[in-house]
Amino acid sequence: MKHIKLTLQYDGTDYSGWQIQRKETTIQRIVQNAILAITGERLKVNGAARTDAGVHALEQIAAFKTQSNLEPKTFLRALNAHLPQDIRVISADECPVDFHPRYSAKNKTYSYIISRTVAYSVFLKRYSWQMPYQLNYKAMRQAANYLVGKYDFSSFRASGCSSKHPVREVIKIEVCELDSFDFMSFQFDSTLIKISITANAFLRHMARNIVGTLVKIGRGNIQPVDIKEILESKDRRAAGQTAPACGLFLEKIVY
Amino acid sequence: MKHIKLTLQYDGTDYSGWQIQRKETTIQRIVQNAILAITGERLKVNGAARTDAGVHALEQIAAFKTQSNLEPKTFLRALNAHLPQDIRVISADECPVDFHPRYSAKNKTYSYIISRTVAYSVFLKRYSWQMPYQLNYKAMRQAANYLVGKYDFSSFRASGCSSKHPVREVIKIEVCELDSFDFMSFQFDSTLIKISITANAFLRHMARNIVGTLVKIGRGNIQPVDIKEILESKDRRAAGQTAPACGLFLEKIVY
Repeated sequence: MKHIKLTLQYDGTDYSGWQIQRKETTIQRIVQNAILAITGERLKVNGAARTDAGVHALEQIAAFKTQSNLEPKTFLRALNAHLPQDIRVISADECPVDFHPRYSAKNKTYSYIISRTVAYSVFLKRYSWQMPYQLNYKAMRQAANYLVGKYDFSSFRASGCSSKHPVREVIKIEVCELDSFDFMSFQFDSTLIKISITANAFLRHMARNIVGTLVKIGRGNIQPVDIKEILESKDRRAAGQTAPACGLFLEKIVY
Repeated sequence: MKHIKLTLQYDGTDYSGWQIQRKETTIQRIVQNAILAITGERLKVNGAARTDAGVHALEQIAAFKTQSNLEPKTFLRALNAHLPQDIRVISADECPVDFHPRYSAKNKTYSYIISRTVAYSVFLKRYSWQMPYQLNYKAMRQAANYLVGKYDFSSFRASGCSSKHPVREVIKIEVCELDSFDFMSFQFDSTLIKISITANAFLRHMARNIVGTLVKIGRGNIQPVDIKEILESKDRRAAGQTAPACGLFLEKIVY
């Protein structure tokens, strides 16, 4: 029995997220079907993160146990031959039997992109939240600092979250504003805000609810310090809207 | 009668190019329909370049004559409200009556992106030619120099080209190789080749046929100097394949 670890990348636009649901086209289902086609095995592929519908992954980690003798590099080639072009395996390796993509992870980083432009929006719309309003990114940065630490994040937790408890440790939140940026090698003179959140684990919609609340602060609707009260209220209604899925990228998982 | 000049941007993936065809969904048709919806006029919008199906535009220039008294900035807002998200008007201005987007243009620049990676390909597939082979970009650059000047470009002209004569002046060809590049604010450690071609005008498929021929040279199938013979043969069969449309961007038009 071999235990294979995959690093996956996907454009989440056309998928109903990672996790298998009864009828929806999910990435986990597509990867499992590709393995079935290759080895004939109906097995479960565990993922590090249950990304939502429409969320992208620069690096999702997944693993599965197989009876097949295929080498990891053969799995890589065969999977990429079976998977659609918007899901790619970028590495495959054998891993210890007790490795679990989710439970072995020390922390995860999600990054969120907000674009502020009409121009270039045709190239950014799949990958960012297009914001017609001016945002005060310094206020957003100040507010973000209040969330760093080990807290009950119930205010940023979606209903239907399956986690047993609402305490998570946010290790770092970075809010960067870029006046111009590159898209492949094309330089776009337009503002981009990137919010990167590193935490030991995330509750359902936690990253997107933090972003939505920071945007409320960036627009000046509430003050940076108000986020402290929002956090302490442990009430989802106190926080801002859930930011759209298309701007969110699962960026990095540390073991 | 007002003459309005538009700067358009589009993701060409889902369109059959710029120019109106009987049944196809083209960008010209969609823009004309949007104007019809706004002013009630059935008019013709002239474009600077007839981009092919699947080709993108960072900057396409178009113009139309209208009886409407709407200000250019009102057209900008109204058009963006009517146009699909993958076609945007990024500026609108009044222009002289004798301005013609195509005939008034001094030169145009098309840029072509070639990516060489499995990783990141999910984000690049709409916008690049994904190349499994190693390319010698120095040989490609050397070959490109042979094409700079005023020549009969019949060898790089698609059948069905409606131009009266096959002579064009190529002003500049740049071949750049990047070891890493940015996609919005994410750094991707992977090779990207960008080929930018500036010419007074382009024959049908000329940019893509030049790229396809340079790739043949980059792969070592023919030598850089061979492109001189290909040019002189005035025979389309002598040149390389037509590079896929998805990697091509209409980048800049100079008046």
